Amino acid sequence: MSDLFTESSSQWLSRDELEAARERLPMLYVDAVPVRVDETGTVTAFGLLLRVSGDGEISRALISGRVLYQERVRTALLRHLEKDLGPLALPKLPAHPQPFTVAEYFPIRGVTPFHDARQHAVSLAYVVPVEGDCHPQQDALELAWFTPEQAADPEVQQAMAGGQGTLLRQALAVCGF
Amino acid sequence: MSDLFTESSSQWLSRDELEAARERLPMLYVDAVPVRVDETGTVTAFGLLLRVSGDGEISRALISGRVLYQERVRTALLRHLEKDLGPLALPKLPAHPQPFTVAEYFPIRGVTPFHDARQHAVSLAYVVPVEGDCHPQQDALELAWFTPEQAADPEVQQAMAGGQGTLLRQALAVCGF
Amino acid sequence: MSDLFTESSSQWLSRDELEAARERLPMLYVDAVPVRVDETGTVTAFGLLLRVSGDGEISRALISGRVLYQERVRTALLRHLEKDLGPLALPKLPAHPQPFTVAEYFPIRGVTPFHDARQHAVSLAYVVPVEGDCHPQQDALELAWFTPEQAADPEVQQAMAGGQGTLLRQALAVCGF
Amino acid sequence: MSDLFTESSSQWLSRDELEAARERLPMLYVDAVPVRVDETGTVTAFGLLLRVSGDGEISRALISGRVLYQERVRTALLRHLEKDLGPLALPKLPAHPQPFTVAEYFPIRGVTPFHDARQHAVSLAYVVPVEGDCHPQQDALELAWFTPEQAADPEVQQAMAGGQGTLLRQALAVCGF
Repeated sequence: MSDLFTESSSQWLSRDELEAARERLPMLYVDAVPVRVDETGTVTAFGLLLRVSGDGEISRALISGRVLYQERVRTALLRHLEKDLGPLALPKLPAHPQPFTVAEYFPIRGVTPFHDARQHAVSLAYVVPVEGDCHPQQDALELAWFTPEQAADPEVQQAMAGGQGTLLRQALAVCGF
Repeated sequence: MSDLFTESSSQWLSRDELEAARERLPMLYVDAVPVRVDETGTVTAFGLLLRVSGDGEISRALISGRVLYQERVRTALLRHLEKDLGPLALPKLPAHPQPFTVAEYFPIRGVTPFHDARQHAVSLAYVVPVEGDCHPQQDALELAWFTPEQAADPEVQQAMAGGQGTLLRQALAVCGF
Repeated sequence: MSDLFTESSSQWLSRDELEAARERLPMLYVDAVPVRVDETGTVTAFGLLLRVSGDGEISRALISGRVLYQERVRTALLRHLEKDLGPLALPKLPAHPQPFTVAEYFPIRGVTPFHDARQHAVSLAYVVPVEGDCHPQQDALELAWFTPEQAADPEVQQAMAGGQGTLLRQALAVCGF
Repeated sequence: MSDLFTESSSQWLSRDELEAARERLPMLYVDAVPVRVDETGTVTAFGLLLRVSGDGEISRALISGRVLYQERVRTALLRHLEKDLGPLALPKLPAHPQPFTVAEYFPIRGVTPFHDARQHAVSLAYVVPVEGDCHPQQDALELAWFTPEQAADPEVQQAMAGGQGTLLRQALAVCGF
């Protein structure tokens, strides 16, 4: 059954079919905010992905992706964490299934703080401590660690697409900052 | 735009198309546990829907339903609460978007405590105080109030379909019982 | 037993004795963020107390106070809400005992974002919708409602004493802003 | 300052003084439910302390203890975890300060599900994954791991003192069981 859960196997939902579904149903997503914690569990750094676009512009993002058919939410979280941070990141998923918030990405701007032009996505958001080495697996992608003070900078947050700056601010708040 | 959000209008996603999507994507749901609270906010009763089937058997259920395309989670909650409790129930939705848990209903039994033969549904679960009069709108449907002690009865919980007894038990725990 | 719970009766813990305890034990507090919500539960305004000091300076504050011996946390919340908002405020306490955060006020600055020169206080923080009329009961005290945008203003938050601006920011985040 | 935080140093609040305070103020506590998790964060076992009394009776308990003056809640959690599980347990404290519930232990039975004849204690409760080796440090104390099914057994829960069976049940619910 495990091959149901790989990214490539989701292709049996053909690209056209996925596009059609995206115009008619909310898509289920997960968002992960990777963090470094000290021995008391206090967050010392928030991880943001840096993407360098073709024209050299840098955009910052959280880890985000779709939950597949018959995939557990936890499995989806691990899959997207591994895809973006590499296989040695050692993420520690929370024991609670409760997300810290639910981010509703609408195709129309202004309904919520979150926006996704392609689709209506509803995302379960989690703060995930990672203990290992993080090496993004894709080209033109890096991971940078921000102290809580740096992550709280409105400029950092405003430069994030789709309203993810709001999600980062909410993650900071939930972690006591 | 509001007609997008009515149950009937979802028919523009034809029954066949919805069936096809159900075999390929997780469906986004909400579950609501209606409660009565006293003036200190303490839950005094949990509401369960009673359905009488054709052969006279009674089944108990929580309020549950799909989130539609471009519908807010809050709007979906209100819509399903009104559909099952009537327009005078006066539900008080939580100020926090955070659900108390996420219930993953799988078409295969045993993956999680939750099961739905028709589909893979991921449901955001909320406890919702209702202050008004509750009158189920459909035939063969009643609402019954259970004290916390009655709701904690394993027999009550085991008689609920799809693992919703587990969700009721989790709602009791979250409310301090 | 109810007279145990009134503010005046706590005087049987004499002022001297309370001062002595404050130097040796963490004090248990509650913080409440009063909000107005619309029919979908979305917060439309955050309430801040305005205190005018002798020299005409205005300070803004959340509702905050001690939990007494043998007093329920819920009862303490209601007591402080009534004391600061009057008897007609109709606060709707959450059904969940879980606070949205725990604020640790230290007598030394810099240990946490929260500071209280008099004592080490640990406060359970709740967002509380209020539906009625709010009339502060004490002289030199007013309640003002701030839209989420106004409440998010760093200037508003920085003007609050003891780090309560951080608590207001966390309440905004928890409510989806 | 660290010597303020050791159990022995709390003796500068003499035994008599602590007794006096216990009759007049709520005491701030933490409760920890140690768990083993698999690589997806799913709880595989709940840890209970077993105490053998002089007459050979076994009682089961959660990890529980007081928060000291000027001690962080996190530090108190770590201190009590280390005291009861030994220095090699490697507890992973949550990044969120939010407890999963607040347990109010009253000296009078029946006010809440929680009871403590000595005092009014208000306890912040956390589920804490532990990754290392657990070796209780005190005589007549052992740690036993229970599967979620075993921990859900009403007999196990009823045999716990002070209502901690209720807290264990709430921890199970919060972890998705």
